[in-house]
Amino acid sequence: MALVVHKYGGTSIGDIDRMRNVAKRICRAREQGNEVVVIVSAMSGETDRLIRMAHEVSQTPSDREYDMLISTGEQVSMALLSMTLNQMGCPAVSYTGYQVGIITDDSHSRARILEINTDTLHRELEAGKVVIVAGFQGVTIHNQITTLGRGGSDTSAVAVAAVLDAGLCEIYTDVDGVHTADPRVVHKSKKLEKISYDEMLEMASMGAKVLQSRSVEFAKKYKVPLCVRSSFTEDPGTMITEETEDMEKTAVTGVAMLRYQARINVLDLPNTPGIAAKIFKSISAEGINVDMIVLTENNYGGTDISFTLDRQQLATAKEICERISSDVNAKGVTVEESVGKVSVVGVGMRSQPGVAADVFDALGSNGINIEMITTSEIKISCLIKEKDLENAMRCLHERFHPEAPGAEQE
Amino acid sequence: MALVVHKYGGTSIGDIDRMRNVAKRICRAREQGNEVVVIVSAMSGETDRLIRMAHEVSQTPSDREYDMLISTGEQVSMALLSMTLNQMGCPAVSYTGYQVGIITDDSHSRARILEINTDTLHRELEAGKVVIVAGFQGVTIHNQITTLGRGGSDTSAVAVAAVLDAGLCEIYTDVDGVHTADPRVVHKSKKLEKISYDEMLEMASMGAKVLQSRSVEFAKKYKVPLCVRSSFTEDPGTMITEETEDMEKTAVTGVAMLRYQARINVLDLPNTPGIAAKIFKSISAEGINVDMIVLTENNYGGTDISFTLDRQQLATAKEICERISSDVNAKGVTVEESVGKVSVVGVGMRSQPGVAADVFDALGSNGINIEMITTSEIKISCLIKEKDLENAMRCLHERFHPEAPGAEQE
Repeated sequence: MALVVHKYGGTSIGDIDRMRNVAKRICRAREQGNEVVVIVSAMSGETDRLIRMAHEVSQTPSDREYDMLISTGEQVSMALLSMTLNQMGCPAVSYTGYQVGIITDDSHSRARILEINTDTLHRELEAGKVVIVAGFQGVTIHNQITTLGRGGSDTSAVAVAAVLDAGLCEIYTDVDGVHTADPRVVHKSKKLEKISYDEMLEMASMGAKVLQSRSVEFAKKYKVPLCVRSSFTEDPGTMITEETEDMEKTAVTGVAMLRYQARINVLDLPNTPGIAAKIFKSISAEGINVDMIVLTENNYGGTDISFTLDRQQLATAKEICERISSDVNAKGVTVEESVGKVSVVGVGMRSQPGVAADVFDALGSNGINIEMITTSEIKISCLIKEKDLENAMRCLHERFHPEAPGAEQE
Repeated sequence: MALVVHKYGGTSIGDIDRMRNVAKRICRAREQGNEVVVIVSAMSGETDRLIRMAHEVSQTPSDREYDMLISTGEQVSMALLSMTLNQMGCPAVSYTGYQVGIITDDSHSRARILEINTDTLHRELEAGKVVIVAGFQGVTIHNQITTLGRGGSDTSAVAVAAVLDAGLCEIYTDVDGVHTADPRVVHKSKKLEKISYDEMLEMASMGAKVLQSRSVEFAKKYKVPLCVRSSFTEDPGTMITEETEDMEKTAVTGVAMLRYQARINVLDLPNTPGIAAKIFKSISAEGINVDMIVLTENNYGGTDISFTLDRQQLATAKEICERISSDVNAKGVTVEESVGKVSVVGVGMRSQPGVAADVFDALGSNGINIEMITTSEIKISCLIKEKDLENAMRCLHERFHPEAPGAEQE
């Protein structure tokens, strides 16, 4: 008898009909001889409704009360799903985060899971029940309700699967799996049958919002076999697993992009040790994440530093750079507001040379200028003008997945 | 510094504007130097919305999951009220039933409070905060969420006031207090300034649904000064307190009625010991409550038993009586379906003779026939035809409160 964890997102249980369909799927998994633990999000629209109410009464609701409020969303959906299952003759019981013992730190609205008590889960599974657990929420050791941040239910599911040593964790959502590229941008993209944890992490961090990054890190760390699939079809979805040998055959698994980036250039800094550290420490102290960094010696014996960051944090970071630049008599600061990042990701590029050259060629021959480049073992990222992003996605996808279905239809 | 408990019902916090008004009232109480604990119900309509959803997915939702579902209603309103107060600069913090430690038995959907932990309440009050606690809900010692049944928030409020030894428990609602009679029936009724616990209990049990009976029992037991008042006006409302001497001056404090009663007559039972016990034990075993009972020896040496009960339980009770009647060769069973009960209540009648005579005269002179009578120390109840109920209320009110305002307006 296998133990499986299902996670259903808000659209999968968005109304009573959809909830019934989900219940049927759960019943079937149980009838096939599995023990089933289900993690649910709030019904779609519910969290937004609650957030709207909060903002009606307060411009800056405290994180504690905010968590108190929105954690009711999952409690409603899990109780209704449990009732639906019981009505179908499938014994089920629902538990809030605190009841089941999902212990988190005390960072309200973005808490991290520290520990999950398995006593209640095991007891109810042994009693032959489907156990439904509220996703997205936990409780501190001081009995305060916390939430894990948007998409946190994925992390709840993987964490529960990890502590129960589940054979499979299925993330049900409204897309059919992970694609070679965002289908809304690249119509020729195709669904991947499988992808490695590392590739998925690179894709997720690039804004391919199929899964919360932290849930993939968790899955990788605890080797939880993860599957992303649609709750509306019988499509088997995409498996996210440890790397297998055949994954290396494909140089580029997926293409992804990140919009709304900005670039800051600090020009002609004196070539003294610690000057770069000073800039990035000051920026990090403001809670700003820097992405790509290029540091070059210029022709005048000084150093130029360029880096990228989320556009909405540009103003703050620019001020910091200008202050430091002025302190050390550097030449000044320039910014570029409308840039984005396009990346190709694949474990295969480790063993296949020439991927970088292919990327540059694909972009260059389409008139797209590359402003910065960073590479990791399994990813090549290029900073380009924001207006070129979607075109770049299509060029790169065509270069690395020319065989994608749908090509002949166009 | 006094400690006061405020309880706000669903209509008092039915929308954001009303919630702001309630918050202002709480702020004011705090600015006047009080420590304030607030008990909230779900926003009006919310519990019904949740129940509707439950019945969409299940004809017979389990009580446990039902409690899980509807207990979210108070959690939403308390978090929003806390945000509203904090936004106004009044420090507040909200707690669910389980967080604050409202321990109940495990009778889901009609649980009884066993114990309330005061540690959290005291700690937050000492920190200078308004503490908002979810009404209507608690938790079993096994960490299961329970609810107290409709109107249970009143009991939550009184219980919290009792354990904190509060100076006053104010129940805010959408009526201005307790009236000498239901104003929808008796237009000349007037609001009472005060009423004793015992009188209020008799009125509450008669369907004057201003307060849940259990909350009044609690208040009486722990001597909690209770006040019922409107959240929409500055009217001081009605105080419900221990009996005072001046209360005795009024023979009849209030007039109340109970609709939808039925009467069963079991005729000519053999005059053997235990026969009445047999009937009432069998009925009670079905969970049926019997109200008025009259047992008389008839002219033939046998015994007639008449009793009243809620009309919806008539069929079951009749069957039981017919079976027993047949077993002991009694004459048979007759029923009367359309009766109701009208009562006058007042601690003054203990010291003022002639109240019963006045009741009979008021009804008789208006052509209303009395079918059964029961009396307690502070109440006289008459069973009459259902169609006569409202008229009886007005006659009795006119007799005992002829001075009521509004008389001259009619």
